[in-house]
Amino acid sequence: MPVPMVDSTSRILLTPGPVAVPDFVLEAMRHQVIHHRSAEFRSFFAELQNGLQYVFQTQNQVLALPGSGSFGVETGMRSLFQPGDSILIPVYGKFSARWVAMARTLGLDLHTLEKPWGEFPTAVELKEKAQTIPHLKGVILTHCETSTGVNIDLEDCVSKLRQVSQELLVVADVISTAGIVPLYFDAWKLDLAVAASQKTLLNPAGTIYVAVSDRAKGNFTSERHAAHFGIYADELARGNFPYTAPVQLFYGVKAAVEFLRQKSLPVVWNEVHQRARKVRAEIVRLGGELVGACNGDSLTVFHFPGINSDVLKQLLSEEYQIEVSGAQDGWKGKYLRVAHFGWLENGETEAFLHALQQLITDLKDE
Amino acid sequence: MPVPMVDSTSRILLTPGPVAVPDFVLEAMRHQVIHHRSAEFRSFFAELQNGLQYVFQTQNQVLALPGSGSFGVETGMRSLFQPGDSILIPVYGKFSARWVAMARTLGLDLHTLEKPWGEFPTAVELKEKAQTIPHLKGVILTHCETSTGVNIDLEDCVSKLRQVSQELLVVADVISTAGIVPLYFDAWKLDLAVAASQKTLLNPAGTIYVAVSDRAKGNFTSERHAAHFGIYADELARGNFPYTAPVQLFYGVKAAVEFLRQKSLPVVWNEVHQRARKVRAEIVRLGGELVGACNGDSLTVFHFPGINSDVLKQLLSEEYQIEVSGAQDGWKGKYLRVAHFGWLENGETEAFLHALQQLITDLKDE
Repeated sequence: MPVPMVDSTSRILLTPGPVAVPDFVLEAMRHQVIHHRSAEFRSFFAELQNGLQYVFQTQNQVLALPGSGSFGVETGMRSLFQPGDSILIPVYGKFSARWVAMARTLGLDLHTLEKPWGEFPTAVELKEKAQTIPHLKGVILTHCETSTGVNIDLEDCVSKLRQVSQELLVVADVISTAGIVPLYFDAWKLDLAVAASQKTLLNPAGTIYVAVSDRAKGNFTSERHAAHFGIYADELARGNFPYTAPVQLFYGVKAAVEFLRQKSLPVVWNEVHQRARKVRAEIVRLGGELVGACNGDSLTVFHFPGINSDVLKQLLSEEYQIEVSGAQDGWKGKYLRVAHFGWLENGETEAFLHALQQLITDLKDE
Repeated sequence: MPVPMVDSTSRILLTPGPVAVPDFVLEAMRHQVIHHRSAEFRSFFAELQNGLQYVFQTQNQVLALPGSGSFGVETGMRSLFQPGDSILIPVYGKFSARWVAMARTLGLDLHTLEKPWGEFPTAVELKEKAQTIPHLKGVILTHCETSTGVNIDLEDCVSKLRQVSQELLVVADVISTAGIVPLYFDAWKLDLAVAASQKTLLNPAGTIYVAVSDRAKGNFTSERHAAHFGIYADELARGNFPYTAPVQLFYGVKAAVEFLRQKSLPVVWNEVHQRARKVRAEIVRLGGELVGACNGDSLTVFHFPGINSDVLKQLLSEEYQIEVSGAQDGWKGKYLRVAHFGWLENGETEAFLHALQQLITDLKDE
């Protein structure tokens, strides 16, 4: 395998967020501030809105605001549900467990469907669980559990849940999936979906993008403040932004969504899919084990039996300037996580596979 | 008056946030993403923390996270107070009124001290009001009411309030003041103070910086989520960031706080003060009226009797590419607001005064 063409002076970020950012995004951000109540901003934001609608495949509003992905999902829950509302949260990793903690904080009537890390709930299981809950108001679905690399079949889950109740409010964490795997906000009848700049949107961290259905808007609680989506939806409907807009980060995200549109989503989806297949095949060929259901393309979780994952991570970093993530919580130290999204157009994944081959060979020889 | 040296191809932003950003900030942001759990980030963040402590004049932790200024103050209230807690909010403009709305949302036992727009509460009035409230737990002070340009004497207010109760939790909105007018977080015995990147910190919008005292930390409610400061304080104490950090915006803010440190705060404070004096003297000389108490240096609110403020704003924008802000709510259409903070090192304020002189002369001749 030839040594891939990657600039060795910079580190290769293959963590499942944050991701390396293309030069054209950094360049787009190098632009003087414009006022968020100016005609120039309105015209700029209309184009950004349009690009975001393409990414989510929706005709609905996509809110844009400062925050982390977790802030986004938590704010979705705060915006839609009140103490005592019944909600269902399938739990299959660290992030879905975080939404459970938030449901407790909000005083919701919480129902969970728990799966061991690496597994995932099926649409049928979700439907059966939902049928047992009287007056179920909402469900929080994590499209890709970034802690385990596992995806649910989001389309099928929503479809089967809607057989239980058409009025169910379906919130989806699409933080590690929007723009890189098939996602159809309108066709799948989602109500609220949260994406984050530093994951699949090829940008630095700091902003979130939230598609909201009319049903979601109609169910927003009456509070209005900066940690509630109601005020953003109200103001956006009038072409306004309720607080000073993070314009610089929007510049970068607009450049990225235009890139995705120009390339076209199906092409991007296929590239990510082929990248995931290639990485998984090579890990297995080298004697590694894939961990978890591996039913999504966002990232791969793996280990090599007999080789310490922390040591492997450190060698990738020190000898090859390649950063992958360790696993979290109960999986900490056991497995590694490598992302298939981000700016990976210059042989970064190939460089990772090359380094892995070298290191595994060396470590096995020891 | 000679025509000042300002690049006429770009607009001059004199709005009281967002502000024009210096090139060295945009350049600092043009830097590849680093992972927020890397040694490089920890070392970078330690330096940023140090610079922020200088700006707030504190040895306490300064939290750094995505959000708008309003999100910051509201999150401060959510982090410190529980339903039923007695708090006092002096109201003297649009932003202090926003904190009142948040107190209602949180179910607090709300007490207000209301002043007409343009006026401000004195420390003695605040103390006398506080003495009438049993079990008063906290107070929310707006250092500069950006809607009216009015400041309170923050040092004296806190001092007199502490005579009522040493244990009072004092939250300060320093969004339009931190770094440009005297502010001593530790010496003045503040508990929580919120600054925002796009105001006095010479940066694009999107991040907030929050100094927190040990008393504040000891009083954080037990919730832990992305719209609560507890998790940021807990993790920062361990050298961690709880969610993916908005590294790009931090790069810019670090460059700005280093600039402030190099220039030294007293020099900056004096520059802003002289700028405010000069603008006010010139407005009065041209026949304009200063509106509100004009007891702070952050911005000036003014109008010219007989001249429509909206027309003046439009002419400044269209003929001179100078953006000032209109007033808000009840003052809308009546007054204009011009900021004395932001990147104003290239004759921007002088260009504004020159344009104003021309326009006022022309409009009076009509």
